Amino acid sequence: MTKQKRFMLTESELPTQWYNIQADMPNKPLPPLHPATRQPLGVEDLAHIFPLECCKQELNTTDSFIDIPEEVLEKYKFYRSTPLVRAYELEKALGTPAHIYFKNESVNPLGSHKINSALPQCYYAKQEGTTNVTTETGAGQWGAALSYAASVFGLEAAVYQVKISMQQKPYRSSIMRTFGATVEGSPSMSTRAGKDIITKNPMHMGSLGTAISEAVELAMTTPGCKYTLGSVLNHVAIHQSIIGLEAEKQMEKAGEYPDTVIACFGGGSNFGGIAFPFMRHNILDGKNTEFIAAEPESCPKLTRGKFDYDFGDEAGLTPLLPMYTLGHDFRPANIHAGGLRYHGAGMIVSQLIKDGYMHGVDIPQLETFEAGILFARTEGIIPAPESSHAIAATIREALKCKQTGEEKVILFNLSGHGLIDMTAYDQYINGDLMNYQVTDEDIAKNHIGTV
Amino acid sequence: MTKQKRFMLTESELPTQWYNIQADMPNKPLPPLHPATRQPLGVEDLAHIFPLECCKQELNTTDSFIDIPEEVLEKYKFYRSTPLVRAYELEKALGTPAHIYFKNESVNPLGSHKINSALPQCYYAKQEGTTNVTTETGAGQWGAALSYAASVFGLEAAVYQVKISMQQKPYRSSIMRTFGATVEGSPSMSTRAGKDIITKNPMHMGSLGTAISEAVELAMTTPGCKYTLGSVLNHVAIHQSIIGLEAEKQMEKAGEYPDTVIACFGGGSNFGGIAFPFMRHNILDGKNTEFIAAEPESCPKLTRGKFDYDFGDEAGLTPLLPMYTLGHDFRPANIHAGGLRYHGAGMIVSQLIKDGYMHGVDIPQLETFEAGILFARTEGIIPAPESSHAIAATIREALKCKQTGEEKVILFNLSGHGLIDMTAYDQYINGDLMNYQVTDEDIAKNHIGTV
Repeated sequence: MTKQKRFMLTESELPTQWYNIQADMPNKPLPPLHPATRQPLGVEDLAHIFPLECCKQELNTTDSFIDIPEEVLEKYKFYRSTPLVRAYELEKALGTPAHIYFKNESVNPLGSHKINSALPQCYYAKQEGTTNVTTETGAGQWGAALSYAASVFGLEAAVYQVKISMQQKPYRSSIMRTFGATVEGSPSMSTRAGKDIITKNPMHMGSLGTAISEAVELAMTTPGCKYTLGSVLNHVAIHQSIIGLEAEKQMEKAGEYPDTVIACFGGGSNFGGIAFPFMRHNILDGKNTEFIAAEPESCPKLTRGKFDYDFGDEAGLTPLLPMYTLGHDFRPANIHAGGLRYHGAGMIVSQLIKDGYMHGVDIPQLETFEAGILFARTEGIIPAPESSHAIAATIREALKCKQTGEEKVILFNLSGHGLIDMTAYDQYINGDLMNYQVTDEDIAKNHIGTV
Repeated sequence: MTKQKRFMLTESELPTQWYNIQADMPNKPLPPLHPATRQPLGVEDLAHIFPLECCKQELNTTDSFIDIPEEVLEKYKFYRSTPLVRAYELEKALGTPAHIYFKNESVNPLGSHKINSALPQCYYAKQEGTTNVTTETGAGQWGAALSYAASVFGLEAAVYQVKISMQQKPYRSSIMRTFGATVEGSPSMSTRAGKDIITKNPMHMGSLGTAISEAVELAMTTPGCKYTLGSVLNHVAIHQSIIGLEAEKQMEKAGEYPDTVIACFGGGSNFGGIAFPFMRHNILDGKNTEFIAAEPESCPKLTRGKFDYDFGDEAGLTPLLPMYTLGHDFRPANIHAGGLRYHGAGMIVSQLIKDGYMHGVDIPQLETFEAGILFARTEGIIPAPESSHAIAATIREALKCKQTGEEKVILFNLSGHGLIDMTAYDQYINGDLMNYQVTDEDIAKNHIGTV
């Protein structure tokens, strides 16, 4: 009898509802504020930009579970459940007594977890009569997912891709174009926000904050166009909860429960996705699971940011959001984990950190690539540089167990594969990558809550 | 109640034996011959080049089923079963009454079916005391799989990659290097065979036949080094039968049986893999399934080749193999489906074509990309250009059903994804790709069975 490696769910076992942790949080997230009046925003204020149903979910602090629309469930069945995998080979290579599991979102269409929220956002937009959607993308994972989801539901998509990522990962723009989307490098000359940034700094290679400014501006100035976001916001965390809800059932099949849950952290979409359904049992059932969000050393908002109201974008077009932030004009180093180059944390996560339910760790770039290559050679999957942050944090925890002899159960989310990121691996193998430390002065010079 | 989309097997339902169609064929494949003596080769003759156990499987015409070694089964469980998927969205887009299913091998580690044979070949090599393995690769799918399998079983790997593919798909070399393999563009100056070819034609962009010559030469001249091949040979078809054996059980779960089975065709590995377990029932149980191998219009060995003894490589280093061939020095056009640029068909398939159990269709490059993009936009997976040949052939059959009203059940193998092939999609979208027709003169000028 050999040990079971993969745990799957049948279609009839798939969750039919998402989980909304806001309903269970002892302290609710603070509300987003209008930047001029500093008054809390309601559904109707957000609905100028986002699909209405997403706005309702965004501010829903009462319903723990929200029905997944039938049409979205149908699309989920294209690829869900994703496998829960026991990483026996990684355990062996580390010589750890820990039991390491990973949820493999890399086998999703387009190679990452992003599709889980792209599908409902496009579905709601279509239902509400929208014809066009726009968004920003860093590494291109979200943009690719959004382009596909738009094509599935018959919407036109326009994507602003962070310029540095576009250069590092040209295939991702090709993927978006294959699904019929228009792709533009950000900062671009096609928006006021983009022009202003280029005027100030012609060599600006872009950031998620900048690209968000451009996409929001396009949505606000184009009739029939709605903006969609792949992370940070509460409704995205709700959609991504499908990851953790599945993992919960799958861990049950494996006969274990996680002592530690780990995910990489950019805006919080894959972290919230895997963590919140388990965190529910910390809040409600007295469980004691540790939750670790792995961020890049070069963009340390969780470990070194300030909790305050700040803009979600560089130009200051979004509402003021209560979050751990490095300042909305913080310019992260050009690391390959483009999806983690964002100055702020989501509102839910920020409140949960304040309340001690989770914590961040920051990881140097070289350590993440070392971890990614070890994972590839043991488990056969080349991880996205973003996901390698979760792997590196997992390895740290597993090596602690080796010291203490503890048989901890560690679960991490493999948010995506790195087959589009091979340039980064090439550079690492050739010794051309480096770490980027952030000084206190780097952080102090940025702005929080003022444009 | 919604219609089921994906069919999976549990670990306990996974096949524990491979299928060997040679045992059931009414006419066995003709034996490979020694090129000088033209005498049939035995296991001991092949064992100079290949792992011994592979040689035994190669010439095994008596055992229908062969046990999968426990250690290989363990590795299969990393990623198997792969999903069997009902392509409802593609059916809808085509307006066909046909039921289209595909076996999704694109979710395998490294993104294609090749890993299914790389693992046992490296396992047997290691068991027999080999320290190094070498191989050729076209598009890089096989080379990537072999590099990973070598790393899993602690072997050094050296890969000759067809030069044109190396340029078209640079990420694949990076993948191989990530797993620790040495990669060289073929034709290279590191072998006699490579030097001779470059001397004759300095601009030679390589072909599978050329790269095989180089890898075979390296294996023959390096102690402790064995050669491995990702297609063409009988033992590869045996290993790949895991695809069809799983699909058989999964089609049962779907409550259907295929009227038509389709796969793309280079050397026959993914075709044999999905087809032979079903073809067994044509041979033994009176089933009437149609089997279609989809080859490129620019490399039409099945539809326009000659059945004869020919070399497996360009330089004439391999045994003489009985096969449909365009001549071992046929130089295929530089299409993007690099894995299909091979002059000959495997021995088993060649005999089966002669005996009327299957047939080939040849498909123009532009039709394959049109099919691939339709598939991506409907089913969410960007297919490898090789796999798009199977999709194009499937679409042709499905449109015939639209004409006749027949509700045929069509099963095709999605051998791999195209995320590393985005340059090709870019070129297609920009209108920069073309078709390549082969004239009778192009074929007539090549050599069969003589160097």
